[in-house]
Amino acid sequence: MDTKYVIGIDYGSDSARAVVVNAHNGNEVASSVKHYPRWSEGKYCNPVINQYRQHPLDYIEALEFIVKDALSKAPEGVAENVVGISFDTTGSTPVLVNREGVPLARTEEFAENPNAMFVLWKDHTAIREAEEINRLAKEWNIDFTKYEGGIYSSEWVWAKVLHLLREDEAVRKAAYSWVEHCDWMTALLTGKTRPEETVRSRCAAGHKAMWHADWDGLPSEEFLVALDPLLKGFRERLFTETQTSDKAVGTLTKEWAERLGLNTDVVVGVSAFDCHMGAVGGEITPNVLVRAIGTSTCDILIADGRSLEGKVAAGICGQVDGSVVPGYIGLEAGQSGFGDIYAWFKNVLSWTVEQLVPERKDVLDQIIPRLSEEAAKIPVEESTILALDWMNGRRTPDANQNVKGAIAGLTLASTAPRIFRALVEATAFGSRAIAERFRREGVEIKGCIGLGGVARKSPFVMQTMADVMNMPIRVAATDQTCAFGAAMFAAVAAGLYEKVEDAQKAMGKGFEKEYVPIPENVARYDELYQKYLELGRFVEEHRI
Amino acid sequence: MDTKYVIGIDYGSDSARAVVVNAHNGNEVASSVKHYPRWSEGKYCNPVINQYRQHPLDYIEALEFIVKDALSKAPEGVAENVVGISFDTTGSTPVLVNREGVPLARTEEFAENPNAMFVLWKDHTAIREAEEINRLAKEWNIDFTKYEGGIYSSEWVWAKVLHLLREDEAVRKAAYSWVEHCDWMTALLTGKTRPEETVRSRCAAGHKAMWHADWDGLPSEEFLVALDPLLKGFRERLFTETQTSDKAVGTLTKEWAERLGLNTDVVVGVSAFDCHMGAVGGEITPNVLVRAIGTSTCDILIADGRSLEGKVAAGICGQVDGSVVPGYIGLEAGQSGFGDIYAWFKNVLSWTVEQLVPERKDVLDQIIPRLSEEAAKIPVEESTILALDWMNGRRTPDANQNVKGAIAGLTLASTAPRIFRALVEATAFGSRAIAERFRREGVEIKGCIGLGGVARKSPFVMQTMADVMNMPIRVAATDQTCAFGAAMFAAVAAGLYEKVEDAQKAMGKGFEKEYVPIPENVARYDELYQKYLELGRFVEEHRI
Repeated sequence: MDTKYVIGIDYGSDSARAVVVNAHNGNEVASSVKHYPRWSEGKYCNPVINQYRQHPLDYIEALEFIVKDALSKAPEGVAENVVGISFDTTGSTPVLVNREGVPLARTEEFAENPNAMFVLWKDHTAIREAEEINRLAKEWNIDFTKYEGGIYSSEWVWAKVLHLLREDEAVRKAAYSWVEHCDWMTALLTGKTRPEETVRSRCAAGHKAMWHADWDGLPSEEFLVALDPLLKGFRERLFTETQTSDKAVGTLTKEWAERLGLNTDVVVGVSAFDCHMGAVGGEITPNVLVRAIGTSTCDILIADGRSLEGKVAAGICGQVDGSVVPGYIGLEAGQSGFGDIYAWFKNVLSWTVEQLVPERKDVLDQIIPRLSEEAAKIPVEESTILALDWMNGRRTPDANQNVKGAIAGLTLASTAPRIFRALVEATAFGSRAIAERFRREGVEIKGCIGLGGVARKSPFVMQTMADVMNMPIRVAATDQTCAFGAAMFAAVAAGLYEKVEDAQKAMGKGFEKEYVPIPENVARYDELYQKYLELGRFVEEHRI
Repeated sequence: MDTKYVIGIDYGSDSARAVVVNAHNGNEVASSVKHYPRWSEGKYCNPVINQYRQHPLDYIEALEFIVKDALSKAPEGVAENVVGISFDTTGSTPVLVNREGVPLARTEEFAENPNAMFVLWKDHTAIREAEEINRLAKEWNIDFTKYEGGIYSSEWVWAKVLHLLREDEAVRKAAYSWVEHCDWMTALLTGKTRPEETVRSRCAAGHKAMWHADWDGLPSEEFLVALDPLLKGFRERLFTETQTSDKAVGTLTKEWAERLGLNTDVVVGVSAFDCHMGAVGGEITPNVLVRAIGTSTCDILIADGRSLEGKVAAGICGQVDGSVVPGYIGLEAGQSGFGDIYAWFKNVLSWTVEQLVPERKDVLDQIIPRLSEEAAKIPVEESTILALDWMNGRRTPDANQNVKGAIAGLTLASTAPRIFRALVEATAFGSRAIAERFRREGVEIKGCIGLGGVARKSPFVMQTMADVMNMPIRVAATDQTCAFGAAMFAAVAAGLYEKVEDAQKAMGKGFEKEYVPIPENVARYDELYQKYLELGRFVEEHRI
């Protein structure tokens, strides 16, 4: 029997990556990355108002490039033996489409209109709409936000869609329906772009669109119209069914098989969001918290539905049956700022060089490594500065975009490395707050896995996190857990494995390191964590 | 009649300064400064434990140099017509002396022993002793700390003396009495160093040694012995009388007249602490708050005793009849950190250059000017970062060395200049807290005068202070208000003026600028000040 291969495609915020993987043992045979060309130029964005839009052509061009490029690097015979392809993308990253399911920016009239493009997850132009959704949801007889942590975010599809409809009359008149980035990719490749045919990801719909089996899918027409009559009719042009990512959407169209250099038998699996597939690639098992740690964190946990006893965890970012591993409830949480907190302090410290020695900006990249080195030398009993990691608001527990960060316990002897240490401890306290919320809500946490750049490259941060969370943390042996996760799903969708867990066992790359809590640090951080909670309650209550 | 001259000597923390002044119009005819040579080398100090000691020879050598140097620069005929000399010094800066009143470090046995030297005001080695004094004072039938704000500080003489006696057996056996730096200078020059003869400054004794007429001078022998039997007998070798600084101690001894190049008719006035004489030099009038603003602030106010109706202001740093201007109650307060707070932030920002571009340390002096420039451009409505100026503890109101600083309201957009602006606002809020405490205690405040480097060189800081305090602030036209104040006292002690107020009128240099509150800023800062108080209460209560 010929060796079979699968392709995992990971669409990140700035670039897309393809990995071509041996479907039997998970070995990577080739990979490729491409940055989105228009996005790289800063097109269609306005950071001042947090408007972040991506052109569909960026996605298409990147896809063609990375697949063909990766296959060209792969050994002979690989392309012919690719049997499946699956996607993960950022989200919620929706776009308005016409009756044929074409993103409006792909029509001549709207080719340069940001409101006709994909609204990237981190676009915050729909804050008002999110507030309206939350207000209405609390008054309604059904709380449609219930399975999304009880607080609807401006980063999510309904707020964004409503904002676009209100903002842009021409776009509104042309808009027939909407589609998430992850679902548009599979629809495109399988020729199922007509809204009625498009297969919808359980993960995207359940975590961001208030889809739930309890209320027969999306929120009711009455609810949507009460929100704004502009939404009238959308629901019936959308969907009631969703699919988990072990399922196939279809096979490649002739056109796309040619464009990608694959054959038309290749199965296209149902998509999901990056962290959810990343958690699978990072070898999630029930009740193990998998944390993708970068600028922010995305925390994924799966639990047997019976263990939750029908309870809905409050204050997290959603719980959806099958959004990660089919057969389990997928729970999502996250910190709005993690690496971003360190980057913020780096920016503050960069001021000196930028303003006074601008010709030496080359040294700025050394700031965080040097701070980490110095901070790691400080004995834990000298950790007396106390910081609050809410410089970018708080996602979990109890999302609140209005809270802010703080640094207390400052003395004239508080140096830059000591402050940095406090910031690292604060991000770890934020991590612990998530774990404690899960526990309070009856969700057991047996272990922790770290994914991503921070997890692999910052031993000081990871040791602090292990100490603060009082839990060993394993670090996945690859940076590309999202793309690897997508490859595992592709293998399942293509029928090579019966279950996702089987693909994980066969294809997983394991762990490269484990951070074990140091008992004396645990005790010290237990005390500091109580003060962290006190400080947090204070600044939130007093709106400081 | 020949023109008469007076000399004002100001002993600061690092250097001593002499000004030779025309006693009729206050014009400066010459001046000189000298840094203490041993102190400059860091001798006898240990910053890690906040041990700061000064050798008596540093004071003597500096004195000879600056007086002779200034006189050598003065026009012909000035030296012969000097009629008075007065001193201000830091304090409480006491030394243990032998039976002849010689500081122990001037005897061979203790020439290099830091415990035999002057204990500089900012030495904090006596924290434990200060706590014991406070504990005992609250249990005692008389609260001897009552006129010193109700909280005895580790910076003050009794705590320091007790600490030295406990610490060093050899020193203890040799110690007969103690003397403040300011009183030792006048004793030395007039030949009255024997403890029984030494004239004691009302200012020093009243503000730091718990001297008060209500209890016949110093705290009772019973109190001191209850504190520690080591103090047995000290009280009777000290003093019951004190003098205000309009009085003369005596005239120069033949030896000192020769050493200084003056004649033996020169009157030596009673000394006082620097800020008290500085307030006079800065033209203090009743109920005007005079603020010497440098690394920290020293705030002086004088009030008619009758206006206080016998009330003792709580939570300030002392109130003493005649400690500033005879006939008025002198009240002292202060912020433990002011310029030091900015210097702290400068140090944090300096890390980048010091670590990564060490060859460009020359730029570090530009940090505060550039931050001030950028911070001044930020509209007041964008002042959303909230800082607490307690990085060096809090002196007034309600001294507490254990409280710490904080910075809250931080976002990813909080730049170095925005943080600096918050720190400037915080120091201004700390200023307002002092003014409000005076008012709450029934002490009227009619105006404000700023002295010192920060007042003269930082328009942004001073405008912010005027806005936050909602009070016009005049800035004295000279940096040398302490030495000028000493010169005014010298003129009064020498009999050229009947009263201090007369010397002020004739010799004062006036004001160079007035900062007037900007109404819209006042309103905004009113709100922020309430949050500052909330944040302060929180961190103090929760010991964060």
